[in-house]
Amino acid sequence: MAQELRSGDHADVRFVLAAGSTDTASIDGISAAGASPDVMAHTPSADAEILEYGRPVRAPVVPVSPSGCPTPAVVTRAVRERLDFPATVVDAGLAADTAAPTVNVGASPGDDVRAADPVPTAPTAFEAARELGRSLPEDLFVAETIPGGTTTALGVFAALGEGDAVSSSLPANPLSRKRDVVAGGLEASDLSRGDAAGDPVEAVRRMGDPVLATVAGLAVGALDDGRDVTLAGGSQMLAAAALVRHAGADGPLGIATTSFVAADESVDVRAQAAALDLDLTVTDPRFDRTDHVAMQRYEAGEAKEGVGMGGALALADRADLSMTAVRAQVVDVYDRLLGEE
Amino acid sequence: MAQELRSGDHADVRFVLAAGSTDTASIDGISAAGASPDVMAHTPSADAEILEYGRPVRAPVVPVSPSGCPTPAVVTRAVRERLDFPATVVDAGLAADTAAPTVNVGASPGDDVRAADPVPTAPTAFEAARELGRSLPEDLFVAETIPGGTTTALGVFAALGEGDAVSSSLPANPLSRKRDVVAGGLEASDLSRGDAAGDPVEAVRRMGDPVLATVAGLAVGALDDGRDVTLAGGSQMLAAAALVRHAGADGPLGIATTSFVAADESVDVRAQAAALDLDLTVTDPRFDRTDHVAMQRYEAGEAKEGVGMGGALALADRADLSMTAVRAQVVDVYDRLLGEE
Repeated sequence: MAQELRSGDHADVRFVLAAGSTDTASIDGISAAGASPDVMAHTPSADAEILEYGRPVRAPVVPVSPSGCPTPAVVTRAVRERLDFPATVVDAGLAADTAAPTVNVGASPGDDVRAADPVPTAPTAFEAARELGRSLPEDLFVAETIPGGTTTALGVFAALGEGDAVSSSLPANPLSRKRDVVAGGLEASDLSRGDAAGDPVEAVRRMGDPVLATVAGLAVGALDDGRDVTLAGGSQMLAAAALVRHAGADGPLGIATTSFVAADESVDVRAQAAALDLDLTVTDPRFDRTDHVAMQRYEAGEAKEGVGMGGALALADRADLSMTAVRAQVVDVYDRLLGEE
Repeated sequence: MAQELRSGDHADVRFVLAAGSTDTASIDGISAAGASPDVMAHTPSADAEILEYGRPVRAPVVPVSPSGCPTPAVVTRAVRERLDFPATVVDAGLAADTAAPTVNVGASPGDDVRAADPVPTAPTAFEAARELGRSLPEDLFVAETIPGGTTTALGVFAALGEGDAVSSSLPANPLSRKRDVVAGGLEASDLSRGDAAGDPVEAVRRMGDPVLATVAGLAVGALDDGRDVTLAGGSQMLAAAALVRHAGADGPLGIATTSFVAADESVDVRAQAAALDLDLTVTDPRFDRTDHVAMQRYEAGEAKEGVGMGGALALADRADLSMTAVRAQVVDVYDRLLGEE
């Protein structure tokens, strides 16, 4: 387990965050990523700034759910402050300005998945991300931040004819609501379940979001180049993995998620990962050992994942950084962001 | 001297690279930053990628002068590989695509300084950069990459009524050529020497480039916020410092440059720094102690500075990283980039 993140002077692993948006998040009852739609538009931009600078810079908010659960960016940043892994943010369709440096792949914000063509930039973003993934020198951990993303993940599953369940950032998963939305999306796109099998770009364009297009492109490109790729996240990364497999990339692909996703009874992550031939890593930060507000809400089943939290925890484990140290650093970051309130 | 770059888990210093372009670089005989105008357009994009990834990713070239002098990005990256300081690239008017993540400040590529209004985005970029500088949590080392930048630096000096000499990336400084260009620029802008004194945004808009507007904004903002600012570079950073002073910011401002700039007989960096009340740091990487091709050309007076090389060397010195170790790492980076040729 005592694997180092760096060999010699160069990083072996780069953490790449695809940050973007979809109007699907505005549908009532879909997402917990931000207290209101106005605030939610800034969530991915704020997450990127927290990852990069340890606090929002241009973003006017710290993303916190209505019940007080802080964005998982806090956890990912906490691990990064201890391990110093290199991180790169890709603009996968940001709706609000960010001061985080971003790589352009030509992605625009996604429309509501119930539109006929919600992600017209998917082909461009997939291709540019593939080229980027092919060119980056390190193994990749690929993460996402996009409110509403589990609904578009369900949409991609439907288009590809894969699983029919996803996790949620809410403790009570509004899965039937999401299925209704996806049914509306299929109808608007004139698709039946599985119609886009083997055509991942079409699937993500008609039923997904620009983040999934970008994540899938990055993964396919890095696999092409013989790099190891770990998708850092939950249901959205399972959808990204399905896109990768439907693109014909059958190389070794990992998924690293949190114990909170693994404990979600509305999905069987282990079965889904096995079906896609993914090497699954589940890491438990043992938030039950603290009663700090920053971690309590996760124990209550909120948020669960995002901004590569499960991947960051896996990197911590790999580098022999204890979860006790991770939790202490989470408190540090949280207090910096929200301690005044 | 044994100052640490990090206190506790947070970096104290962020390295910010303003990367951009000006058509002034296309004037015959002005710049050594790239073998031909076609290649030169990619130099800042490639420099940003080398800083971020250790090699070009989207950029089709490694910037090397006609005589074989590699871009100073090689030296800055080498130091970064040893010290792991956080770095952020600002798009200060890039003319070519880059895979490096960049912060947007609304800058566009600059026109030839002999145009009437070569940098119409200067006010926007200055303001956005000031806001960014004010918001970033660390002390800043601010660097630049822009071919042709010493000529626009001379233009800014003229508009402000400051010094009338700048250094060069060429061993034989084409200073009279630059003065002719600046005279043409003043005429086109209907300005006389010193007409823009006290109006730095006007000076950089009419006679400068988008990188200088961005660097000056970053510095003014960070000084406003009580942060330490070190301008990492030579003549261009003296021009940026003049803009900062003409903006009324009289806080403690440093400049960190190389021994190659300090040895340039065409300018008196010490006198210029003193006139602007700058704390000057000159660092000598002792490239005379090696005959590696990556460093020989610097000893011959080429390149001299750029991509914050002098600032990176100062950070190395501050962290007690020996110049022997720096030179060894420069060879590593160089061989990775150009070893095959």
